[in-house]
Amino acid sequence: MIGMKIGIVGLGLMGGSIASALKSRHHIAAYDCSPEAVAFALSKGIIHEAFSTPKALFLHSEILYLCLYPLALADFIQTHQDDMPAGTVLIEISGVKSEIIHKIDAFIRPDIDIVYTHPIAGKEKQGIAYADAEIFRGANYILVPTPKNQPDHLQSVRQLAAEMGFGVLSDLTAEEHDSIIAYTSQLTHILSLALVESDDQLFDTKRFIGDSYRDLTRIALINETLWSELFLTNKKHLLERVKNFRNSLNKYVKLLEHDDLPGLQKLMRETREKRSSLEAGEK
Amino acid sequence: MIGMKIGIVGLGLMGGSIASALKSRHHIAAYDCSPEAVAFALSKGIIHEAFSTPKALFLHSEILYLCLYPLALADFIQTHQDDMPAGTVLIEISGVKSEIIHKIDAFIRPDIDIVYTHPIAGKEKQGIAYADAEIFRGANYILVPTPKNQPDHLQSVRQLAAEMGFGVLSDLTAEEHDSIIAYTSQLTHILSLALVESDDQLFDTKRFIGDSYRDLTRIALINETLWSELFLTNKKHLLERVKNFRNSLNKYVKLLEHDDLPGLQKLMRETREKRSSLEAGEK
Repeated sequence: MIGMKIGIVGLGLMGGSIASALKSRHHIAAYDCSPEAVAFALSKGIIHEAFSTPKALFLHSEILYLCLYPLALADFIQTHQDDMPAGTVLIEISGVKSEIIHKIDAFIRPDIDIVYTHPIAGKEKQGIAYADAEIFRGANYILVPTPKNQPDHLQSVRQLAAEMGFGVLSDLTAEEHDSIIAYTSQLTHILSLALVESDDQLFDTKRFIGDSYRDLTRIALINETLWSELFLTNKKHLLERVKNFRNSLNKYVKLLEHDDLPGLQKLMRETREKRSSLEAGEK
Repeated sequence: MIGMKIGIVGLGLMGGSIASALKSRHHIAAYDCSPEAVAFALSKGIIHEAFSTPKALFLHSEILYLCLYPLALADFIQTHQDDMPAGTVLIEISGVKSEIIHKIDAFIRPDIDIVYTHPIAGKEKQGIAYADAEIFRGANYILVPTPKNQPDHLQSVRQLAAEMGFGVLSDLTAEEHDSIIAYTSQLTHILSLALVESDDQLFDTKRFIGDSYRDLTRIALINETLWSELFLTNKKHLLERVKNFRNSLNKYVKLLEHDDLPGLQKLMRETREKRSSLEAGEK
């Protein structure tokens, strides 16, 4: 696809990174309520054009990425859908699906097609100043097609994901998405947060950390607005995954309590093999 | 210090990395029971010289790094101390202290000085093929001085650590060391292992992971011989740290169960600030 008119609503880390990844092949226009974010994006050449209202952006775009936080997303569509031309194609990119789809389905105009996607990429920084097309290179991408989606729109979304550099594209149902993402993404964040929270700070911790602690806690530099919404809108699956994690932690603790060296080594070996089998998923 | 004769027992990842970091300023000789490791180290110029017995190495070294697993360390000293000249200076580098010091204290000859250290650096790979002096650059280093240590020997160890590129050097008691390291190092490993172990593998996980999962689980590519020993020899502190972690995880779970968005955001903010305060500890 050459030269589509792509609209982006929300110039944060993700909106800015998507713009950066597509700007050499397409015309990128954007809307953001922050004049600073817009000015930054224009001055750095991240977008080609900005509109001062969502309506003007809708009218000038063939396809639109909505790069908004989960709770703001449905509100935005509901507030602005009357300004969208018939046949508008929206792509949303949030990290939860069932609750969002359920909510949006209840009110969205039948002549608007919304494609639900999850680019599994990000940074522990927020804002367009950290926008970086490289975060998509080789990364995983999930599509959650609905019966309403037009096949050619799904195809366009897949094509754009490939152009952005994503590696593996998968189709999942909303329920499947929320279950596996509760494990690979939300559980990792809650563990990292709890690890940092559990520091009793009796020591000057920074003098005694190595790469393992640095790596496990980097995502505790969290964007609390985004992640509190992701946790709560995927609560059922996240709590289930926390339960499984606690069971696994208990296995290790029991072996430790029983001074079971061979048992500990065996479980570590099995765990290592499980992790090794993911290496194909390394970027 | 220029031109010391440094001996290294054990040419694994750590022994090899220490040799690499010191070889340009000092003469490095080594002993390892694996002829392959020795041949590799010589052929790559990681060491200048190898001896076929520990005794020969002791006789030709002014100071010796013992780069052995925790359980092998005391055995090695006990077996070979009769071959050590009076005044031998040993440096051990393992990740636990109280139990090791207690064990070695019980039998070590009074005319041998052993300095207990913990270079907080490593890799999820094992073996001399992965030796890399860069792992020490800016890393933290802990010394656990004992009343028996001669001040000039401690000074030499500090000087060598600085030459290897370590950033911050700290003195701790054995108990302090084991408490904080149970948190920053051993707890991180048990959490990473439990995270991977808890994967029910109902999905093709590698298609749905991002950098957060990759970062949190890299250390689950574990060396089970080393880490099972570290866990068990520091069991008391590790179980205490697991308990604290569980309490912190429970705080997050409770907020989630109560749909407490402001509470979740507040705790995330506090956790983020705790993590931010460690940035000075970033390499």
